[in-house]
Amino acid sequence: MLGVEESRQELRKELTAGIVIIGNEILSGKTVDSNSSFLARELRAIGVTLRQVIVIPDELDLIGNTVRDFHEQFDLVFTSGGVGPTHDDITMEGVAHGLGRRVIRHPILEGKLREYSASRATNDAYMKMADVPEGAELLSLDTLRFPTVKIKNVYILPGIPEILQQKFLALKDQFVSSPYYLKIIYTNQYESGIAAYLNETLEHYPELLLGSYPKMNDPEYRVKVTLESKDQTYVEQAFAHLMNLLAPGGVVKTEG
Amino acid sequence: MLGVEESRQELRKELTAGIVIIGNEILSGKTVDSNSSFLARELRAIGVTLRQVIVIPDELDLIGNTVRDFHEQFDLVFTSGGVGPTHDDITMEGVAHGLGRRVIRHPILEGKLREYSASRATNDAYMKMADVPEGAELLSLDTLRFPTVKIKNVYILPGIPEILQQKFLALKDQFVSSPYYLKIIYTNQYESGIAAYLNETLEHYPELLLGSYPKMNDPEYRVKVTLESKDQTYVEQAFAHLMNLLAPGGVVKTEG
Repeated sequence: MLGVEESRQELRKELTAGIVIIGNEILSGKTVDSNSSFLARELRAIGVTLRQVIVIPDELDLIGNTVRDFHEQFDLVFTSGGVGPTHDDITMEGVAHGLGRRVIRHPILEGKLREYSASRATNDAYMKMADVPEGAELLSLDTLRFPTVKIKNVYILPGIPEILQQKFLALKDQFVSSPYYLKIIYTNQYESGIAAYLNETLEHYPELLLGSYPKMNDPEYRVKVTLESKDQTYVEQAFAHLMNLLAPGGVVKTEG
Repeated sequence: MLGVEESRQELRKELTAGIVIIGNEILSGKTVDSNSSFLARELRAIGVTLRQVIVIPDELDLIGNTVRDFHEQFDLVFTSGGVGPTHDDITMEGVAHGLGRRVIRHPILEGKLREYSASRATNDAYMKMADVPEGAELLSLDTLRFPTVKIKNVYILPGIPEILQQKFLALKDQFVSSPYYLKIIYTNQYESGIAAYLNETLEHYPELLLGSYPKMNDPEYRVKVTLESKDQTYVEQAFAHLMNLLAPGGVVKTEG
């Protein structure tokens, strides 16, 4: 059984994350990135705090510098994109470069690729997909068709959404942190009309994560207010406090 | 009439851009950012090269440091979010902080806000929307309901997509750069099967922007290959070169 101090520590266990989206196709507007919003929702649901998302082009030095920077700043780093067989797939090299590792051809990945290539030619480009930063771990080796490559705290995921999702879902249990508790108030008042109440609530509950999101042209409400904390009692008390301040007729509905 | 040298210079006129998305709601997965993909498409269409997108939380120092960094790196910087009347709307302060300016209450914006507030109470929170970094310019003052705030090369846009779009569309003519020419090849071959042809094309056309995007479970094609350049002849020659290398039955269709 945990003592009070330990259980508080447990409650405060908090993992941070950063996402590096690698791909000219996003920056040039040819593809809409859906991977960062998928990961944002998934990470939130398991209590991991996503701190930054960055989208960068397929350039070696930029990938290396960005990944090193994120590796130093956050507990978990997820990259997306640039892991296929073509000239613009340089994520493995970029990550290796950023973390001061060489690139090696991994014998297990090489074996997997040869096994799967029965139906098509094995060439240099294809086998490039067995290249990883030296010292990388292979995760979900027995459960996925192709394992996920991890080096230090960096999880290297592909850009294709279906495969990224599959790989993340196979990983996520190990990241489960204490959850966020969320309560939502929808109001028909203007944002400027409730700002003072939000400020007053924050004075009483300084640790509250309080968001205020106006919606245009919605017949149902004008502002969605979100209250969050990892401490359930705290968020419920803050919610009650704010509800008391808001005009009774001003609240359209609540959630959570 | 331009000489050869001048017209080359003209062709190479190139503006770079960075986008800073400010908002906890994106990072916590509560809202999907559509502003960066809108701006990516719009910028591409007018020939501006988007170099980076970053999503950061509503934190003063982080906003300041990120905006200063982007201001130094890129010709144009667009921020999105954090410009309303509530406690978490700290973009103006963050940008001012990052660029070494004070925050002042702008008399013209103050006047606009008072004019629009006939139907609702004017309070401190509401009037906060007249605060801007000292020295900021007001753009589209006569055409938009509320002008766009610009300081140095930083354009401060709101997070609400409808308003951001309206503001950007009112601005974009001044950014028109030389356009990109795009040609697309859809192939039913695997990416590893065409990688060598892509590499060979790049050897002959090293300045080509060449992208290769596999699609899963699409009955029509396996890989979409994009060829781009600001030089139309160059991209057409590279396209002809690559088409010659690809197996005739392997090309499903082309565009551009």
